[in-house]
Amino acid sequence: MSKRRSIAVDGNHAVASVAHRTNEVIAIYPITPSTPMGELADEWSAHGRRNIWGSIPEVTEMQSEAGVAGAVHGALQAGALTTTFTASQGLLLMVPDLYKIAGELNAFCMHVAARTVATHALSIFGDHSDVMAARQTGCALLASASVQEAHDFACIGQAATLRARVPVIHFFDGFRTSHEIDRIEELTDDDLRAMLPDELVRAHRQRALTPDRPVVRGTAHNPDTYFQAREAVNPFYEAAPAVFAAEMERFAALTGRRYRLFDYSGHPAAERVIVLMGSAGVTAAETARFLAERGERVGVLQVRLYRPFAVDAFLGALPHSVRAIAVLDRTKEPGAPAEPLALDVIAALESRDGDARLRVIAGRYGLASKEFTPAMVRAVFEELARARPKRRFTVGIHDDVSGTSLAVDERFSIESPEVVRALFYGLGSDGTVGANKNSIKIIVEHAGLWGQGYFVYDSKKAGAMTVSHLRFGPRPIRAPYLVRDAHFVACHHAAFLERIDILEHAAEGAVFLLNTPLEPARVWGSLPAEVQEAIIGKKLRLWAIDALSVAREAGLGRRINTVMQTCFFALSGVLPREQAIARIKESIRATYARKGEELVRRNFAAVDAALDHLHEVAVPDRVTATRARPPLVPQEAPEFVRRVTAVMLAQQGDRLPVSAFPVDGTWISGTARWEKRNIAAEIPIWDPEICIQCNRCAFVCPHAAIRAKVYSPGDLSGAPAHFPSTEFRSKELVGLRYTIQVAPEDCTGCSACVAVCPARDKANPRHKAIDMLPQAQHRERERERYEFFLRIPAFDRTRVKRDAKHSQLLEPLFEYS
Amino acid sequence: MSKRRSIAVDGNHAVASVAHRTNEVIAIYPITPSTPMGELADEWSAHGRRNIWGSIPEVTEMQSEAGVAGAVHGALQAGALTTTFTASQGLLLMVPDLYKIAGELNAFCMHVAARTVATHALSIFGDHSDVMAARQTGCALLASASVQEAHDFACIGQAATLRARVPVIHFFDGFRTSHEIDRIEELTDDDLRAMLPDELVRAHRQRALTPDRPVVRGTAHNPDTYFQAREAVNPFYEAAPAVFAAEMERFAALTGRRYRLFDYSGHPAAERVIVLMGSAGVTAAETARFLAERGERVGVLQVRLYRPFAVDAFLGALPHSVRAIAVLDRTKEPGAPAEPLALDVIAALESRDGDARLRVIAGRYGLASKEFTPAMVRAVFEELARARPKRRFTVGIHDDVSGTSLAVDERFSIESPEVVRALFYGLGSDGTVGANKNSIKIIVEHAGLWGQGYFVYDSKKAGAMTVSHLRFGPRPIRAPYLVRDAHFVACHHAAFLERIDILEHAAEGAVFLLNTPLEPARVWGSLPAEVQEAIIGKKLRLWAIDALSVAREAGLGRRINTVMQTCFFALSGVLPREQAIARIKESIRATYARKGEELVRRNFAAVDAALDHLHEVAVPDRVTATRARPPLVPQEAPEFVRRVTAVMLAQQGDRLPVSAFPVDGTWISGTARWEKRNIAAEIPIWDPEICIQCNRCAFVCPHAAIRAKVYSPGDLSGAPAHFPSTEFRSKELVGLRYTIQVAPEDCTGCSACVAVCPARDKANPRHKAIDMLPQAQHRERERERYEFFLRIPAFDRTRVKRDAKHSQLLEPLFEYS
Repeated sequence: MSKRRSIAVDGNHAVASVAHRTNEVIAIYPITPSTPMGELADEWSAHGRRNIWGSIPEVTEMQSEAGVAGAVHGALQAGALTTTFTASQGLLLMVPDLYKIAGELNAFCMHVAARTVATHALSIFGDHSDVMAARQTGCALLASASVQEAHDFACIGQAATLRARVPVIHFFDGFRTSHEIDRIEELTDDDLRAMLPDELVRAHRQRALTPDRPVVRGTAHNPDTYFQAREAVNPFYEAAPAVFAAEMERFAALTGRRYRLFDYSGHPAAERVIVLMGSAGVTAAETARFLAERGERVGVLQVRLYRPFAVDAFLGALPHSVRAIAVLDRTKEPGAPAEPLALDVIAALESRDGDARLRVIAGRYGLASKEFTPAMVRAVFEELARARPKRRFTVGIHDDVSGTSLAVDERFSIESPEVVRALFYGLGSDGTVGANKNSIKIIVEHAGLWGQGYFVYDSKKAGAMTVSHLRFGPRPIRAPYLVRDAHFVACHHAAFLERIDILEHAAEGAVFLLNTPLEPARVWGSLPAEVQEAIIGKKLRLWAIDALSVAREAGLGRRINTVMQTCFFALSGVLPREQAIARIKESIRATYARKGEELVRRNFAAVDAALDHLHEVAVPDRVTATRARPPLVPQEAPEFVRRVTAVMLAQQGDRLPVSAFPVDGTWISGTARWEKRNIAAEIPIWDPEICIQCNRCAFVCPHAAIRAKVYSPGDLSGAPAHFPSTEFRSKELVGLRYTIQVAPEDCTGCSACVAVCPARDKANPRHKAIDMLPQAQHRERERERYEFFLRIPAFDRTRVKRDAKHSQLLEPLFEYS
Repeated sequence: MSKRRSIAVDGNHAVASVAHRTNEVIAIYPITPSTPMGELADEWSAHGRRNIWGSIPEVTEMQSEAGVAGAVHGALQAGALTTTFTASQGLLLMVPDLYKIAGELNAFCMHVAARTVATHALSIFGDHSDVMAARQTGCALLASASVQEAHDFACIGQAATLRARVPVIHFFDGFRTSHEIDRIEELTDDDLRAMLPDELVRAHRQRALTPDRPVVRGTAHNPDTYFQAREAVNPFYEAAPAVFAAEMERFAALTGRRYRLFDYSGHPAAERVIVLMGSAGVTAAETARFLAERGERVGVLQVRLYRPFAVDAFLGALPHSVRAIAVLDRTKEPGAPAEPLALDVIAALESRDGDARLRVIAGRYGLASKEFTPAMVRAVFEELARARPKRRFTVGIHDDVSGTSLAVDERFSIESPEVVRALFYGLGSDGTVGANKNSIKIIVEHAGLWGQGYFVYDSKKAGAMTVSHLRFGPRPIRAPYLVRDAHFVACHHAAFLERIDILEHAAEGAVFLLNTPLEPARVWGSLPAEVQEAIIGKKLRLWAIDALSVAREAGLGRRINTVMQTCFFALSGVLPREQAIARIKESIRATYARKGEELVRRNFAAVDAALDHLHEVAVPDRVTATRARPPLVPQEAPEFVRRVTAVMLAQQGDRLPVSAFPVDGTWISGTARWEKRNIAAEIPIWDPEICIQCNRCAFVCPHAAIRAKVYSPGDLSGAPAHFPSTEFRSKELVGLRYTIQVAPEDCTGCSACVAVCPARDKANPRHKAIDMLPQAQHRERERERYEFFLRIPAFDRTRVKRDAKHSQLLEPLFEYS
């Protein structure tokens, strides 16, 4: 047998790795958060990567998930080992075919990065509402709880379906598992071959439709026969749990990792037990162990095989001492007497012999990736201990409308002192996430430590804030929830300090690294009072670097990731500094060698310069700032924007209670205008001297952040000093003024305006009439100018006689001014 | 208030009547068995019929049910009262939108003729698997159990959704209710207006998206807010059951028909209770009443509002005395610990206070319209009385594989002696069903009796057997199951006697009416021994009529429906004969007046002639036949065909046990060739004298039942006497013979062959080279000829040089001979 590697990958990669190696046909249609599985499979096949039988899986993108389901059904009936990946509405479109695939007992294992189904609002985040909408189809539902498990269950699911002939929906939590980077032990091709014996594959082939052995499938049945024929599958469903359990045992013998249909953790004589599945099972199990070690008689039963629900195995896995059970579901089915897992558990308990009644309560948690923490687990255990617990509850929110929610002591933590925790606040597409993934790879694959990375994206994607949550330690990290009490906090974009409480989750004595264009001596003074207060109060060490200048000087343009990564290794102490620098350079060589030695050299230069430009900033013993963080939205904003939107913009949306929200998803319109995202590192500044007034910059700006106005000279009264203005070039409209102005806080810094500007300075051809300059240095002046610009009266378009020469490019003046 | 009418309509009509009058936008896509609702709505709008507010609902057919769901969602958001109708996979395609429609609290009531979802096989018949696949969407599920209830609940559902803002899936059993004709009291427009106050409609309008009050819906939520916002709907779901109950009370005050969320029937101190929903609830409730009157402490709880599941109302509706409960589900979810209604009931019982445990067992019944009878209800009550009942069971089939099924004493009946029961065996499209529907209308709407009609169609549709099950009586008929012990059995197609046991369900002393071309004196002798035995054994009175001759002589061609209907009224005694004849004639006038007086006159003539040609056949006191009913398939058929297909062809498929069927829907191919359907009243006979050998008849036959052969004269050795054969007209191939031959048992009598035949007899231009003649008189001879024809060697196509003149029309010779 070949040796197994330890690798740092996310759940999607971990699953795709097995799925691609154990299938022949892969039909895909992308949907978040399952997309990377399809993309990886497609890429691997495009590069000729082979499955364990030596053929290259055929990957086909269909027109929708409904088409995928049809293609999968067809390929299965043709005898091909077939899979797909999906989530949310994508899974819903497959449901009609899943009934057929299951009804015909096809061996099939698909992989779902479980995601919310859109209701009052769409959400791309993770919960179990999609897989629960497929539970009636006759497919088995196999839940994995971590990246390693997702990898392992992709294999176990494939093996079990070939043997059981019950199709499998293998699912894992969207984002929380699909996008979490973790160290896993990778299954080798030999492992997969050992789990998938040829005779099972041959049996699948034998069941194919073929002209050589013609049979009919897809007949129509009438009342005389349908019911009996439908019951003919029963022996397969009766046998399936034992098949899954046996495959788990074979897997344990092979790899040493043992799973059961229901895995119990906690006190051996627990009286209170939580039943749940998915990644929250890890959090709950760890919390139960923590509390059990401290004498609490609590435990957790993690559900691996949800359907077919193995009643006997479930009852057998519960400690005899149990008196009260809380079932947690990551979905909401309004109108049901309880959520689906709870209903199954209650039915299983009902079928026990004897008269003793257990108390069963049921709760919802974690909808759309809402955090689920050890503190919430403890709150559930405490509820179970009450004389009259809430029979139905929620945990993780504040429900001030229906009173369903449990109180949670957020200070409770079970984090190990061995673990290093780090938070990085970056901008979408600025390279922060990529650099952090790379850091985890270095720490896991080269240094042999354990590492975890989870990345909180805004669904605004590029230009929005991304927060990287990293953990490192000498032992496996079992903490699928966000980092709090971080030892290291990096702010890659100084403007965030003006908007949100970056240091909220810094631990006492933590390192705070700030990327700022200011020289070290000016850094402290630039901070709002709240930030200074937090630094002093938490005894943080403050470090500053002008990463943009370092990157630019090294010839890397605006890519600050290498610089910031170097600083992280220099300050965090996860690895010895020299070793870390060497590993970063190795990694740079591996990544960029294909693109030429010059790029490698530039990155090396950035690494070296980073350390030279990294400065500790002296922290005074008291707050010196006279200005507070500005309000996120002005007082003139509508009440809803101040009460709700502003809280969300401050990244405090988790604290909004149920009553803050409309009952039916109705949102007020025009909230985006109150969100000053302020994310551009550089903003365009207009040079009236060389502008030819073509208006292309205003025309092309995707955020309408550059605007042009034509106005009377008299409108300039009260303008700020040096407000740029020039004569409007027009034969028809003489004596008017003209200005191009940027909205500095709405601009995303994309520089599309510069790209289309045709007007260059003859003396300095690199200078255009519109050119990018650092936002930090120009923001205040431009904000003042923009405010004045907004007050200039709108141009009266009836004054313009359209002519062929002007009309098209003048449109922005008419439409947006 | 205008007066309410008693009308005889089916469930689809009853529902569409309310839905069309209470909506403005109706988006449709046809799917069995819901299609007639959409068709009726479309027809009514096309004819300008108005809703209760005076506007004509806009009916639009979309490209699929997915499009319907989108159109509905859009129309609702535009403030229109909107509905749709669907079933089965159609509902599945709507599921993604139903989540949205519910999440946004749209007032919306749709109507589902509940149907099986395709699994190992497709089935167009009724069960609850489709609506159960939508139970997680947040829609309310409202179950009606009869045609009257479907009519009433269409109104209650619409009223409740406007008030509760929870969308409603109103469902009723596909075919069993959607296609059952029943007497109902029709709600007037005033009734509907009283139930749908304008302020609720205005409130719905106020919630519309409009540029006048711009708001945003369909936003995306992130983990910070989705969960809280999702819980904001809770008060609506909490309140919904009370809203439904209040609307039911308002409805009761208006109409006198009282429904409750859960309706209990049976012994007031019942110890054993069955919980179920849909039409089976009527059967179960009637059986419980029957048994309770005889002292058994049994009862039935019919579920009206399944979701939101009102736990308190459920517990409150159960008698305190209950000790054991059986929950019956009309769906199968393989792998679940119990089916969905059972899970909800178990969860509801779990939340009772106190320690006493009830025994709960759960069973499946009625999948794909499998019969559900009082005998089965009694079997469930008996199971509940056992010391160790099956916790999970099926009823209505024989499960010899997993042993799930209960034993049923099929002789048990609760039919009232007041009720007249009639069975009619007709051919699809022969007018039997239409005539029976008309008879019910006459009996209900004119004579003021109660009547019920249910029609068992084969999914082969036209040309297949249809069995009409009719009941009439002085009181409401609550028997949604097939007729057994019929007082009147009519066989509209004598060939059925050769295939199936028509008299299996004739009661002792019943009237048996046979349509046969034979003169009365020859009828008895023509019957197979089994039929004679049944007639003598059950003391039946045998009547015969040559309906085809009567119809033809009256100028009605092959439409025998008026003739047979007249005979039914003449023999059944449901109405006095003279009154019945008068009503039939009124009805003929109403139906055909638009098409001209001549057609009315012909039908009148058929009515009068029918009575003249109706003859009682003397029944000897012993069997005189020497021949038994021929086997349905020959001994040389494959084992599966003999063991399974033949039983199905004999209409005994209900008796096949689970072990008869493949586990995965795999069917052997080529079974259709063993099914000699023998359904043509007339078959084409070839006249070689005038045939021009164009082969068009063979080319056009949709069942390949007419075939042409070219062969050597020597091949004729051993031919039956007078085997038709003629010289093959060919310049190239001389000295060959040619025959056109019908397969008399495969022909469906469509006469497409005659239509395309260009060769007429010059002397008698109405006579073509291929012409229809009565099957009964020619079947035996043609069968003999066909058997010989099959043995003639296939033509060697290499002998023909294709030329432009021949090649196309010679194709049938090459392809099919």
